[in-house]
Amino acid sequence: MKKEFKVTPWEVKGEVDYERLIKEFGVSKISEKLLEKIKKHTGELNPMLKRGLFFAHRDLNWILDEYEKGNKFFLYTGRGPSGKVHIGHLIPWIFTKWLQDKFNVELYFQFTDDEKYLFSNKSYKEIQKIMEDNMLDVIALGFNPKKTYFLIDTKHAGLIYKQATRVARKITFSMVKSSFGFKDSNNIGSIFYTSVQAVPAFLPSVLKKKNIPCLIPHAIDQDPHFRLTRDILPKLGYYKPASIQCSFIPPLTGIKGKMSSSGNKETVIYTTDSQKEVERKIKKYAFSGGQSTITEHREKGGNPDIDVSFQYLKIFFEPDNKKLEKIERKYRSGELLTSELKEILIEKINTFLKKHQQEREKAKNKIDKFIFKD
Amino acid sequence: MKKEFKVTPWEVKGEVDYERLIKEFGVSKISEKLLEKIKKHTGELNPMLKRGLFFAHRDLNWILDEYEKGNKFFLYTGRGPSGKVHIGHLIPWIFTKWLQDKFNVELYFQFTDDEKYLFSNKSYKEIQKIMEDNMLDVIALGFNPKKTYFLIDTKHAGLIYKQATRVARKITFSMVKSSFGFKDSNNIGSIFYTSVQAVPAFLPSVLKKKNIPCLIPHAIDQDPHFRLTRDILPKLGYYKPASIQCSFIPPLTGIKGKMSSSGNKETVIYTTDSQKEVERKIKKYAFSGGQSTITEHREKGGNPDIDVSFQYLKIFFEPDNKKLEKIERKYRSGELLTSELKEILIEKINTFLKKHQQEREKAKNKIDKFIFKD
Repeated sequence: MKKEFKVTPWEVKGEVDYERLIKEFGVSKISEKLLEKIKKHTGELNPMLKRGLFFAHRDLNWILDEYEKGNKFFLYTGRGPSGKVHIGHLIPWIFTKWLQDKFNVELYFQFTDDEKYLFSNKSYKEIQKIMEDNMLDVIALGFNPKKTYFLIDTKHAGLIYKQATRVARKITFSMVKSSFGFKDSNNIGSIFYTSVQAVPAFLPSVLKKKNIPCLIPHAIDQDPHFRLTRDILPKLGYYKPASIQCSFIPPLTGIKGKMSSSGNKETVIYTTDSQKEVERKIKKYAFSGGQSTITEHREKGGNPDIDVSFQYLKIFFEPDNKKLEKIERKYRSGELLTSELKEILIEKINTFLKKHQQEREKAKNKIDKFIFKD
Repeated sequence: MKKEFKVTPWEVKGEVDYERLIKEFGVSKISEKLLEKIKKHTGELNPMLKRGLFFAHRDLNWILDEYEKGNKFFLYTGRGPSGKVHIGHLIPWIFTKWLQDKFNVELYFQFTDDEKYLFSNKSYKEIQKIMEDNMLDVIALGFNPKKTYFLIDTKHAGLIYKQATRVARKITFSMVKSSFGFKDSNNIGSIFYTSVQAVPAFLPSVLKKKNIPCLIPHAIDQDPHFRLTRDILPKLGYYKPASIQCSFIPPLTGIKGKMSSSGNKETVIYTTDSQKEVERKIKKYAFSGGQSTITEHREKGGNPDIDVSFQYLKIFFEPDNKKLEKIERKYRSGELLTSELKEILIEKINTFLKKHQQEREKAKNKIDKFIFKD
């Protein structure tokens, strides 16, 4: 028996049993057949798909069928600007960029500053600062500026609010109570909020005056929002948005749970961390699947399945299958020590972050190009 | 013992006991002393004040104190565009215009199209049409176009929504449950809505970056909204809005209740009614305080206190005190018959509506001047 766990858009607690989550949320597992279907269009499969980081979906078959008929979808994802961006945030965005490139489609990227205001005690001034900083990370990933539109909930409320009320009229408090566990003590903005998150899933259809399929890549904890969105949109005459969902990127301290800025900042690798900080954090905190002594390790070998450094390589930082397999084999056999495995990861992350930080600097002049013009 | 009654922004039921309402809502009665204080600034007193149609207030003394110190207030009132405008709607707006003229102040006039959408099954297209038509009635009353700003909740959401979330963060579902009697079956837009109605009470302060007193003339049924607004605004650093409140204009059929378009359309006089329609409706429906036969009426006289025609004259259509007293005396004595009293009212209303309808026509080219430019 696994322990109890809790997954909501605002809280991930306990050890997540993804098989059970698939059943509880009613999503579908991504099958081999579906992977083949994706590959037909993308040529190659992103490792995040092959290795199962993106593991579940809703209506992805349908999205591809429509695409094959010439009915292109758009992508929708987003960011709640609550703090600094860490590598756990970047990974699904990198996947989203891969989808944008492979399918050559538009992306609506929502910044939910209202959400972060309504679910915290932060001021809009603080949130605005965080949001502008977060935008640099998104832009740094290289999204196509001609096909990527940043929607900011408060800034674009002139477009969004009216559409949100169309969604809201069809959602009762009972429904959000059961979807999110809200109570009578919730503030009325937080109760309304899910209707705002629904809007980008059909806003392009409103603006272009035609029904356009929408695909939402997101971490599985956001599914309760989009489940509601899927219930409502057909009632307004729009397609149900499809989704492709990833599991959580674990914190340095262990493969349970989700890397989160609201936890211990030491167990998170921020995109702005220096090379030295990355090295220090991984050496000090990255949970090891190795043995307590070198002798014991050489003898019994390590366990890559629970080793966070290995998992990070698998999730993103070592895309080459052969290299990854070799690392795995050598770690399992005891030939590769934990300290050596950590060195591999440190080098990979620092190489990635060096480039990312350069792009982040350049992004400072690009924000305006990405903001949606209404 | 009076029967039970119910007064909410969306429903007025039963015979309203205003003395009890004053206590329940916690508003203050407008005293003779306060009337004198108003008169100091206005020179004369509007009959709606003298005759007690505007009967209650919150912090009106304070508003006048600030005004005397040179700290001018702005006015805020509004319209929920749910249907055609009737004379019951016009009367508080005419009073608002009187305040604007006498104090030479700005007026923010909110059109709550979102409210009407969220509390009905109407489409935005229908509401938009109604709203544009309603605007003609407001403009026809002669508000100063240089000092009057129409705020449309969906159109100006770019300004309003962010401010509404500032209010919303401080209001729980429990609070709106007790203020409005909402249930778990309420839609989440309707639950959020009161925060939108709060915004014009401090939006000018936000825009002008200084705290400006606000005075809201409104019918007493809107008080639950502004009670919440008054609780929240000081927490955001703004003054509590003051208010001046009127009782309901009765329907033709009797002095109980409130003239309402959602009831029987025959018992309501619309601003677009023809002279013949006005005549027919009043003759047929205006509840009479007279006796059943002419002989009996001559003998016992009529009761103006329950006679709707007399009450309409008193509320608005006969501002001349001497003339009104004469009508009252003659009606009470039996000298004036119900049919004659009705003729007086018909002539008054039709004279008023003739001019109003001409101004309504002219207003068609003026809407744009009144829309707030952000």
